[in-house]
Amino acid sequence: MGRPRKALLDRERIGATALELVDETGDFSVPEVARRLGVQTASVYHHVDGRAGVIELLRERVTDAIDSGTLAGVDWDVALENWARSYRAAFAAHPRTIPMLMTAPVRAPGVLAQYETVAGLLLAAGFAPPLVLPIVTGLDNIVLGSALDMSAPDTMWEVSEGTAVPRLAAAQAVTGAARADQAFDLTLAGFLGHCRELLRTGPAHAP
Amino acid sequence: MGRPRKALLDRERIGATALELVDETGDFSVPEVARRLGVQTASVYHHVDGRAGVIELLRERVTDAIDSGTLAGVDWDVALENWARSYRAAFAAHPRTIPMLMTAPVRAPGVLAQYETVAGLLLAAGFAPPLVLPIVTGLDNIVLGSALDMSAPDTMWEVSEGTAVPRLAAAQAVTGAARADQAFDLTLAGFLGHCRELLRTGPAHAP
Repeated sequence: MGRPRKALLDRERIGATALELVDETGDFSVPEVARRLGVQTASVYHHVDGRAGVIELLRERVTDAIDSGTLAGVDWDVALENWARSYRAAFAAHPRTIPMLMTAPVRAPGVLAQYETVAGLLLAAGFAPPLVLPIVTGLDNIVLGSALDMSAPDTMWEVSEGTAVPRLAAAQAVTGAARADQAFDLTLAGFLGHCRELLRTGPAHAP
Repeated sequence: MGRPRKALLDRERIGATALELVDETGDFSVPEVARRLGVQTASVYHHVDGRAGVIELLRERVTDAIDSGTLAGVDWDVALENWARSYRAAFAAHPRTIPMLMTAPVRAPGVLAQYETVAGLLLAAGFAPPLVLPIVTGLDNIVLGSALDMSAPDTMWEVSEGTAVPRLAAAQAVTGAARADQAFDLTLAGFLGHCRELLRTGPAHAP
């Protein structure tokens, strides 16, 4: 039983190391992962299916923090709202992974399983199959756009004296520290409300 | 008159070169910009206010492609919808700039001017000042999340045979090539509808 256990451990260490590198620098390479682990590059390739395989290990690590229990036992819209909040928090802890993970196809089994549950919820709610992945994608974009925004500076618009932007300056002067959360709440409420409306009015059933 | 003209030209070349580097590698450094321009690093610093200054040059270049004419002469919601579409197209051409630009404060005068117009539209429409920047941020997140998604592979979920995700696979089988556009349309429609609702029902006027 030694071998699988060791292989598993190594995959964990590879994913953790790649994640560390992306958190620090925004990217990783397999030779860098190997160097940091003190092993040959070839040893890393022995455990994973190339760079794409490492990206999936990294995806599993980041998404492990998403509470998939949010998706169980409640109405689809409550489920999606709670899932989106947990999903946003998981990625806000690793914002530099977002561009990489948004542009690589999802293959990690644990992540596919969460999307399977979400697809099932939407189909059971009555959404037409051709609408399911556009809805999932819209939710992904809201969550990940907002998670990136959580790394933005508190003062996003530098309206120094003499800048001719009085209305922007006035709006910023009365904007609280919760700007990012308020924006997320507005966006998520709008999105879920629109989806509920689609279910009621029928276009959900057209391709 | 020679000097300012030359300085302007150099700032343009610095911005263009930094943008090239970010498009290619996802990042830039001032020494790399200098090397590519065949000048000393100190010469670059002579023209710009450090790395942050280069980021703003890069921001100006990317956002130059946004048609700010979309914001004039129509109702606030029509204006924001058209602006969001043009804004998304501008960033879809340079997706690797998104994480950098979302996490650096906006100082570029041309960009501040567009946000000034947007803030003015929302205030004139009757939104309470404390809601203006949360709304602007929500729209930014939708646009930039979607622009990143436009670089995603056509088949985002790799549901190979034997993967136990039948509902995800079924949904993906009937998802068209317009997934990304459909997701953006859904999200934008939901967001603007929610904002119109806020105006009608009053919470827009509460802090």
